[in-house]
Parts: sequence; C-alpha cells; structure tokens
Amino acid sequence: MVDPASSPPSGDELRVWRSFLSAHARVLRNLEAELLTEQRLSLVSYDVLVQLAEAPGRQLRMAELAELVLLSRSGVTRLVDRLERAGLVTRQRVAADGRGVIAELTPAGLDRLRAASRTHLAGVARHFVARFDPKELAQLGELCDRLAQAGEPAG
Amino acid sequence: MVDPASSPPSGDELRVWRSFLSAHARVLRNLEAELLTEQRLSLVSYDVLVQLAEAPGRQLRMAELAELVLLSRSGVTRLVDRLERAGLVTRQRVAADGRGVIAELTPAGLDRLRAASRTHLAGVARHFVARFDPKELAQLGELCDRLAQAGEPAG
Repeated sequence: MVDPASSPPSGDELRVWRSFLSAHARVLRNLEAELLTEQRLSLVSYDVLVQLAEAPGRQLRMAELAELVLLSRSGVTRLVDRLERAGLVTRQRVAADGRGVIAELTPAGLDRLRAASRTHLAGVARHFVARFDPKELAQLGELCDRLAQAGEPAG
Repeated sequence: MVDPASSPPSGDELRVWRSFLSAHARVLRNLEAELLTEQRLSLVSYDVLVQLAEAPGRQLRMAELAELVLLSRSGVTRLVDRLERAGLVTRQRVAADGRGVIAELTPAGLDRLRAASRTHLAGVARHFVARFDPKELAQLGELCDRLAQAGEPAG
C-alpha cells in the first residue's frame, strides 16, 4: 500500500513532473522523426539494434532484450519479426535448456546500426546537448542520476 | 539531412543523455508497478483516462488521443478496446463528418481514474518530488522546460 502519510504533489511540483515528461516526449519524437526520415528506422528498432550490438556475442535472449528496451515481450516479438524479415537480426531457439529464443545481430544489422547512429547521435547533440551550457548539462546529469539510481518499489 | 557541421556528443554528454533516459524509465517503471499492483491499471491506460477526463465533454477523437498519449494509432485502438470492455470508455462513430471515431470517458471510468490518481500522485511524490529539495526541483523544471519547448525538427 501507499504510505498514507505521503501528501500528493503541489501544483508547482506537478508542473515540474509534467515538464519532465514533456521534455522526454519532445526530444524522443524529434529523434524518431529524423531516424524515420533519414534511416527508415523507428527509435525502438534502433534501440534493439544498439542493445544487441553491445551484448556479448551480439546476442540476447528475447526476455533480456524486452527488459533492456522497455517493451512488452509481445511487442519485442513483433518488432524482432520485422527486423528479421529485413535481414538485420536472426533468431534461434536455444536447444540446450529450452528456456527460449535468442536474437542475434547480423553483419547487415551492424552496418545499418552504424549508419543510423550518425543520424541519432547528431540528433542527441542538437535536440538535447545543445540546449544547455556545460554547467547546466552537468546539473541535469546529477539530478537525473538521483532518479535513475532510485530502487525498485518495495511493494 | 543532418547538419554535417554538428559534431557527435562527447562521452560526458552521452552519459548525461543516458542518465536522462534511465531516470525516465526508472520512475515510470516504479509508477507502473504500483498502479498495476494497487489498481490493476497500466500507466498508459491511466494516461488515456486522464486525457479523456481533461478533454471538453470528456471525449476525444481516436487520432487526438493517440497524439496525446504518445502511442501509435493501432496501439490506442487495442488499448481502448480493452478499456471499453472494462466499461471505462465508450466509442461512437462520428456520423456528421465521417472523420473517425470518438472515445468518451464513462462515469465508471471517471470513478476508476479518481481512485487510481491517488496511487499515481502518491507515487509521483515519492519517486520524483521527494528526490529533490525545492531549489533542485525548480532547476530541473527549468532545464526540462527548455527541452519541452524545443520546436519540431526542420526536416
């Protein structure tokens, strides 16, 4: 249960919360629009390719992948279906322990990711980094670190 | 095309960007876990109910709703299917201009939203507001406002 002693946020506090959500949504929409236009790749597809590229052997179990990209498991399955048809990812059932399916980045997927990352990183520089001076960016990083390091809910 | 003069982010800049993404993901996961446990409602379902409750006549065209909740149109259709079966939303085809379907919050949907908002707002207070002192919260708000107010990409 929620602690009954915790009071709801004030109007000012809620405005900051909504600004945080809007900031995230705005930047991600801009990044996705550019990725789609220049690379015909959605942001979540890009994220899947990044996660695979950074994994040992460039492969991950589907459940691990779903956790890393913040999609539901069924959402990841549909997405990896499309990436497999495009030749960017292959899948194989894990015979040894039967605990599921592994997705692996193909060489074509790695090439595609390299091209897309130029668009994406230029977008991060323009839509995020360039909005701040170095001191502000460091402040934002510290404040976000505190949120990112917060634990799981106890319940 | 991306401006070829814009250099990619430095390692420090990318760390702030990733911290921003992680902060958003962590807080939203905590909020969703509590909503699911206490109210059996996903965060995106909650967001749909909020958007409808705040709209004139508590109704929105499906395309407007999809824009507001940051879901794909097909995603919104599936979600509203489920909310309609639960009696929280009704849908009707717009006869006059044939431009689509309108979703409307039901009285049961409004009741459900009121109960869920207590869980949600307590979560925002605990997982977001409580991480900062008032000055830090104001700083975070200013920095996020700058991102939120950034324009659409030119391309």
